[in-house]
Amino acid sequence: MAKITKVSPLAPAQFPNLPAIDGVRFATAQAGVRYAGRTDVMLAHLAPGSTMAGVFTRSTTRSAAVEDCAAKIGLESDAGAAILVNSGNANAFTGQRGFDAVMEIAKATAARLGLPAERVFTSSTGVIGEPLAWDRITAKLDDLSTALDQADAGMEAAARAIMTTDTFPKGATATADLDGTEVTIAGFAKGSGMIAPDMATMLSYIFTDTAITRDVLQQILWLENAKTFNCITVDSDTSTSDTVLVGATGRADMAPITEFTDPRVAPFRAALAQVMHDLALQIARDGEGATKLIEIQITGANGNGPAHRVAMAIANSPLVKTAVAGEDPNWGRIVMAVGKSGERAERDRLTIWFGDILVAENGWVAPSYSEESGAAYMKKDHITIRVDLGLDNGTATVWTCDLTHGYIEINADYRS
Amino acid sequence: MAKITKVSPLAPAQFPNLPAIDGVRFATAQAGVRYAGRTDVMLAHLAPGSTMAGVFTRSTTRSAAVEDCAAKIGLESDAGAAILVNSGNANAFTGQRGFDAVMEIAKATAARLGLPAERVFTSSTGVIGEPLAWDRITAKLDDLSTALDQADAGMEAAARAIMTTDTFPKGATATADLDGTEVTIAGFAKGSGMIAPDMATMLSYIFTDTAITRDVLQQILWLENAKTFNCITVDSDTSTSDTVLVGATGRADMAPITEFTDPRVAPFRAALAQVMHDLALQIARDGEGATKLIEIQITGANGNGPAHRVAMAIANSPLVKTAVAGEDPNWGRIVMAVGKSGERAERDRLTIWFGDILVAENGWVAPSYSEESGAAYMKKDHITIRVDLGLDNGTATVWTCDLTHGYIEINADYRS
Repeated sequence: MAKITKVSPLAPAQFPNLPAIDGVRFATAQAGVRYAGRTDVMLAHLAPGSTMAGVFTRSTTRSAAVEDCAAKIGLESDAGAAILVNSGNANAFTGQRGFDAVMEIAKATAARLGLPAERVFTSSTGVIGEPLAWDRITAKLDDLSTALDQADAGMEAAARAIMTTDTFPKGATATADLDGTEVTIAGFAKGSGMIAPDMATMLSYIFTDTAITRDVLQQILWLENAKTFNCITVDSDTSTSDTVLVGATGRADMAPITEFTDPRVAPFRAALAQVMHDLALQIARDGEGATKLIEIQITGANGNGPAHRVAMAIANSPLVKTAVAGEDPNWGRIVMAVGKSGERAERDRLTIWFGDILVAENGWVAPSYSEESGAAYMKKDHITIRVDLGLDNGTATVWTCDLTHGYIEINADYRS
Repeated sequence: MAKITKVSPLAPAQFPNLPAIDGVRFATAQAGVRYAGRTDVMLAHLAPGSTMAGVFTRSTTRSAAVEDCAAKIGLESDAGAAILVNSGNANAFTGQRGFDAVMEIAKATAARLGLPAERVFTSSTGVIGEPLAWDRITAKLDDLSTALDQADAGMEAAARAIMTTDTFPKGATATADLDGTEVTIAGFAKGSGMIAPDMATMLSYIFTDTAITRDVLQQILWLENAKTFNCITVDSDTSTSDTVLVGATGRADMAPITEFTDPRVAPFRAALAQVMHDLALQIARDGEGATKLIEIQITGANGNGPAHRVAMAIANSPLVKTAVAGEDPNWGRIVMAVGKSGERAERDRLTIWFGDILVAENGWVAPSYSEESGAAYMKKDHITIRVDLGLDNGTATVWTCDLTHGYIEINADYRS
C-alpha cells in the first residue's frame, strides 16, 4: 500500500468534538490484519432495545460481510447489537472462505458479548481478493470486550481504526428537538477512493439515542441516503463493500417514534440528514489526491433522475476534473459532459455558471463573461458548477473532487 | 495548449505507406487558426461520381459542423465532394456564429472547387466554446486549391494537419478482391483524448476506389463502426465533434455494388473493417498519457449489449487503468468494475484471465495463479484482460489505455 502521509488540503481543521451516545460503547485494537503499528479493528456495542437500519452497495460482486449484513438488517430483536469492522482487507471475492470468515467473526463476537449471532454486523475494507486472516481479529475479542467495559475509546478512535487510504478521520454530529426532548446523532465514516453511487462507496456508522422503530428508521435512512452518500463520487468506481449502518438506542426520554407520519420524524430526519451530508462531503474532501471540492448543481432538468445523471456525468468526467485541478475555467468540457450524459438536453437552452458568474447561455458564451473572472473563481478550493437545462423542474446536487497526480500516485501503487 | 513533444511509446514505428486512391486528392495549409508553425487545415477533393457515408457523435451538444454534415450525408449527388477539416478550434457551443462559420467555409470551398455547398463536409477539432476565425481558413482556399491541382500532399500530410493532442499521425490501408477486381481502402484519423463511444470520439476520413452506392456504403459503415471506433475509450468522455466519413470514388474497374446482398460486400466490408480497426487501435495507443494498450474481452454475457457495457465498465474504471499503469495485477479491481456495470453478473460464475493466465474462478483466486506470473504479465505493453461471465453467449471486445500522470499533465493545462 502506498504511504500517503500528507493530509488532504480540504480536511477540516480538526476532528469534531462528538458527544457520547447513551447506550453505545466503542473499542479498537491492533490486530495486524494487514497494517502494522496502527489500529485496524473497531467494535461498537449497542445496548438492548436498540434498533438498526442499513443500506448497502448495489454491486453484483458485493462482499461476504455485506451479504451477511443485508440478510440480518431487517430482523427485529431487543437483544442489542454489535458492529465489528476491520480495515486492510475487504474479504471480497474470497469465495466460501470469505463467508466462513464472516461467520467465525460474528459467532465469536456474539459469544463474547452475549448476543445472538444475527445481531453482529461486520464490515471489511481494504484489498479485494485476498483471504482475510479472521483469527487475528477473533484473537483480539477479549481485549476489545475489556476495552468496551472500560469505555476508553470514543468515536475518533473508532473512526481512525477503519481508515484505509483516508488522510483524516471523518466525524459529524447534530441534535434535534423532538417535541421537547433533545436527541443526539453522531457518527463517523471512511472512504476516499472507489467512491461512486449505488450506494456511495464507503463505510459509515451513525448512532443516536432516539427511540424509533426499525422500519421507520430504515425508511428515513433510504430517503436521506439518496440525497447524501449517493450524491458523492470520487472516481466513478463502486466498491464491493459499501455499508451505512444507523443504530438507535432509544435511551432518550421519549415515547418511541413508531410511524413515518409522526410529527417528530421531520426534525429527526433533518438532523440525521445533516450528519449524513457532513460525512458525505468529508469523503469527497478526502477523495484520493483531491485539492478542490466540486459541487455540481443541476436545475431545469426533465425530472430529478435525469438531473442526477447529468450531474454525475459532469462529476465523473476526467476532463472536467482535470480542468478544475488545473484551475482552468474550461466550461466547454462541461458542455461536453452534459452532451454525453444520455439525458435530454438542448444545447441552446443550457445556462452555465461558475458560482454566481454567468458563463454561457443561448448556445454561446455569455456576453458578460470574462476569462479573467472565471480564472479567478477557479482558484477557490470549493468550486460550484451550476447548469440549468431549461427544460423542466428536475434538480440534483452532487459533490466530487478534482483529478490530480495524487490520484495516480495512490492508485498506481496501491497493492505494492 | 500543453506542449506534448514526446511520442506515445505505443506508436507504430512509422506512418504506413498509404497508396493513392484514384479520384481523391489532398492539400494542407497553415491557416493559423490557433497553432503557429504547423499545418492546421486539410482539404480533400473526391471526383464526380463519388458516394459518401458518415457516422457522427450522439452527443446532445454536438458541434455546428457535425450538424451540417449529418444533414448533408444522406443526399444523393454525382457532383463529387470535398472534406475540409481544421484543428485547434472545435467550433462547438459557439451559437449562431458557429453555424454561420460552417456556412461561410462550405460556401467558399464549394465556390472555389465548383461544387454545390451541400457536397462540402467540414469538421473542426480543438477547444470548445471559442469563436472560430473562419476567415483565416477561407483566406487559404486559393492556396489549397492550387495545391490540390499539384497533388503535392498525401495522406500523411493530411493526417498531420488534423492532429491536436495526438502524438503521432494515424493511417491505415487494406485491399480487397471483389470478384476479380482489386480495390483499395486507405484512410487516416486523429484522436487521443475525449475518447469514448457514441460514437468513439475522434475524426476519421477513409477513401476507396470501390464503386458502391451511398446506402450500401452507409449500412456497412454503421455495422463496422459499432465494432471498431465505438469500441475504444480513453477517458469515457465523448466529444461534441466525432465524425467518420467514408468516400468511395468508384474509379475501380467494376460494376457498382448496389445491394447489401451483393457477394462482393463481404470482402469489401472485411477490408474496410480492417482499416477502421487499425485506426481505432492507433487512437487507443495514442490515448493521452498512454503507456499500455489494454484489450478487454468479455464472453459468456447475457447478450452482446450487456457484454459491451461490462467491457466498457472495466475499460473506463480509473482504478483498473491506474493499476495497469502501475503494472499491478490487481484483479480485485476487475471484479469491482464488473460489479458496478449494472449488467447481470454472478460473482461465483466469473472467470478472469490476464492473457492466457487463469487468475480467478468460482468466486475466488484460481489455485494455479501466482502473483509473480500476474506481475510478469503486467510488464507487457499490450495487456489483455479476459472475463467470462458464465451466463450466456454474449461477447464484446473493447480497447483502452492506462491512466497515468501524462493524462493529468495534458488535461490540467489544456487551454493554458
